[in-house]
Amino acid sequence: MAEPFDAVDVITTKRDGSALSDAQIEWVIDAYTRGVVAEEQMSALAMAIFLNGMNRREIVQWTNAMINSGQRMDFSSLGRLTTDKHSTGGVGDKITLPLAPLVASFGVAVPQLSGRGLGHTGGTLDKLESIPGWRANLSNEEIYRQLGEGSGAVICAAGAELAPADKKLYALRDITATVDCIPLIASSIMSKKIAEGTHALVLDVKVGSGAFMQTLDKARQLAETMVQLGQDAGVHTVALLTDMSVPLGLTVGNALEVREALEVLAGGGPDDVVELTLALAREMLAAAGKPDADVEGALAHGQAMDTWRAMIREQGGDPDAELPYSRVTHDVVASADGVVQDLDARDVGIASWRLGAGRARKEDPVSAGAGIEIFAKPGDRVVKGQKLLTLHTDEEDRIPRALDVLSGTLHIAEEPVERAQSVVLDRVSADDLS
Amino acid sequence: MAEPFDAVDVITTKRDGSALSDAQIEWVIDAYTRGVVAEEQMSALAMAIFLNGMNRREIVQWTNAMINSGQRMDFSSLGRLTTDKHSTGGVGDKITLPLAPLVASFGVAVPQLSGRGLGHTGGTLDKLESIPGWRANLSNEEIYRQLGEGSGAVICAAGAELAPADKKLYALRDITATVDCIPLIASSIMSKKIAEGTHALVLDVKVGSGAFMQTLDKARQLAETMVQLGQDAGVHTVALLTDMSVPLGLTVGNALEVREALEVLAGGGPDDVVELTLALAREMLAAAGKPDADVEGALAHGQAMDTWRAMIREQGGDPDAELPYSRVTHDVVASADGVVQDLDARDVGIASWRLGAGRARKEDPVSAGAGIEIFAKPGDRVVKGQKLLTLHTDEEDRIPRALDVLSGTLHIAEEPVERAQSVVLDRVSADDLS
Repeated sequence: MAEPFDAVDVITTKRDGSALSDAQIEWVIDAYTRGVVAEEQMSALAMAIFLNGMNRREIVQWTNAMINSGQRMDFSSLGRLTTDKHSTGGVGDKITLPLAPLVASFGVAVPQLSGRGLGHTGGTLDKLESIPGWRANLSNEEIYRQLGEGSGAVICAAGAELAPADKKLYALRDITATVDCIPLIASSIMSKKIAEGTHALVLDVKVGSGAFMQTLDKARQLAETMVQLGQDAGVHTVALLTDMSVPLGLTVGNALEVREALEVLAGGGPDDVVELTLALAREMLAAAGKPDADVEGALAHGQAMDTWRAMIREQGGDPDAELPYSRVTHDVVASADGVVQDLDARDVGIASWRLGAGRARKEDPVSAGAGIEIFAKPGDRVVKGQKLLTLHTDEEDRIPRALDVLSGTLHIAEEPVERAQSVVLDRVSADDLS
Repeated sequence: MAEPFDAVDVITTKRDGSALSDAQIEWVIDAYTRGVVAEEQMSALAMAIFLNGMNRREIVQWTNAMINSGQRMDFSSLGRLTTDKHSTGGVGDKITLPLAPLVASFGVAVPQLSGRGLGHTGGTLDKLESIPGWRANLSNEEIYRQLGEGSGAVICAAGAELAPADKKLYALRDITATVDCIPLIASSIMSKKIAEGTHALVLDVKVGSGAFMQTLDKARQLAETMVQLGQDAGVHTVALLTDMSVPLGLTVGNALEVREALEVLAGGGPDDVVELTLALAREMLAAAGKPDADVEGALAHGQAMDTWRAMIREQGGDPDAELPYSRVTHDVVASADGVVQDLDARDVGIASWRLGAGRARKEDPVSAGAGIEIFAKPGDRVVKGQKLLTLHTDEEDRIPRALDVLSGTLHIAEEPVERAQSVVLDRVSADDLS
């Protein structure tokens, strides 16, 4: 069958600064999914979009075309409202782990279709796979049963049938320097979430050195674009802009982060992780009609932990099994007395990646035990020789490579450091859109 | 062996508007040639170059890197100076055919390493292949012998060892809407010409609807870039800017254009073809130290034709063989009395392509007989029913598709039409560069 458009004409349109028509967008995404538009053509188009942008209509249509490249899920018959959370990705961001069971413990269904880590930010599935027996791949039937009759929380891999165009395009953007582009980020995230059919969605848009968006302005622009896309598709969508200039919590890695999540579920854990978990839980529960849910109580009194244990068991995991440790550890100590000036999230993320917690190519394995424990954060006073970090790895020769990237951060001086009052910097809802 | 750069970093540099370093350019072209930089990465980089440009240093380095991707030829031991001509491509542009033997008839070596047609402009090799027995592929030894001891003129396919990075990149640009970009056009042309090792080079930069460069300003910019690159590499380079708003001469196609070239070599032929052939020949001969060569005499008295016949025979062709005709012809006649207002070069080129003279994909064959004969050009007074064009094709069902594109041109009205005084619009030499 003859194609209604030619890829070169579509690329030329965007290259020359014009808007793509709805029919062009629909065709180019479909033809790319079918392999008629070649990878090198889509990457040229992605770069033209990166440099010349897309208007609101184009972003909506691009998102719709990606949704239409696959199947939609339908949670309307579950008997429970569904609320989902998506984070744009940060260092030490284990929030999904305590959050999903916490929210589900109030009778709300929480489908968390997640990804694996690539680059310096860890993947939720990689973290959970450090729990013996736990499996990330569920059938649609298993997902529906777990959400409707089971624990109510599911954290699993998105199926290949959900927005396949996005999967293909994301892998391409990753190798062609076209990731960091608001229209493409927004449509990638929202196509999966809308196709998933959630009732409500809370977005955690990270800002700072460890995040895609390095400034509050760009993060707000991304948040507004996504909230708009969600509203247009009938999904109740809210975004929190949260700090990612330093790592979240005191652990970065896979099993290390699961341990910290368990502390939070047991009513403890680092302040910033608890604060963000509670803030996101309140948004999700408000969107599900439960604005007064006692989320602090659910952590303090064990309901969230009960739901966690049920969720882990439903997916084959043993919640009582010991989590793996790495073979080798190495302490980083303070070189002088003074105040810790900085702890760059990106540097820590890259160091953890180099220790084996992350992967360079999507087929690489990750080390369950590798990562970094943090004992001092910016503003803390330390004395010479005091432990600042512990590096964990299975391969001793990875330590110098991690130390190399860490040498640019963790400065100690006598300057006072102002700490942020809150990890939540701002909130964007439909009311804020013009 | 570890690579010194990462493709994503190189793309990011250009994407963000910075200049690429010499080392980045050297690496990215070499790694692309080796297949380490993937097609989709190079197309993203080409689009970033298209939209963000390259400075003069980058263009020089890009050209050098493409030269270094393959072998250089060396004509210094021929005993004859070499001068080459390159045209940026136009409709009905058969100038190479009479020009190469004309210049060679004065004892100057003319190596014309040419390409095949793709899209609406014909290829010199496709035209010559309509001569029975003629072959485009010569070994380096055959080229040297023909230039040094033979006719002195060679028109043949460029070997795979000459700037292989350019061949690969050109094919990629063709399908990713990154052809029409001055830094990439200039480096593509000049890398091959410099690698070829010619002493002098005359560039025919076409301007108008049938050309890459649609305006005189853009054509001058391209010409200046190429003259500069030539000078920097020690090649005596001059450019003529020539009109390509209407087809050159009265034929478009393969065998049809060879017939017209033979008319010129026999001392006749259309005025514009003769004018441009003589202008380019004078430039080439002046660059070879023969500014006073009697080029008109060489056409009028048969020396150029003798060299043509020798050149065709050296490459296996029979200069006396009858040229092929197409199976079907169709006349386009004037719909009214009046003056022909326009004859758009691009429309005629596309119509000829649709009749079978050109190819859509590089593996397609071309029809030797297909094309268009022109009997009236803008400014000519015609009467109703008078023949304006004859379409030639081997497949009757191609005629409506050719007529379809021609319906937008060849208007007849009572308005007078001003004809250009000369096909040569301007000249750019090293003296004109700032």
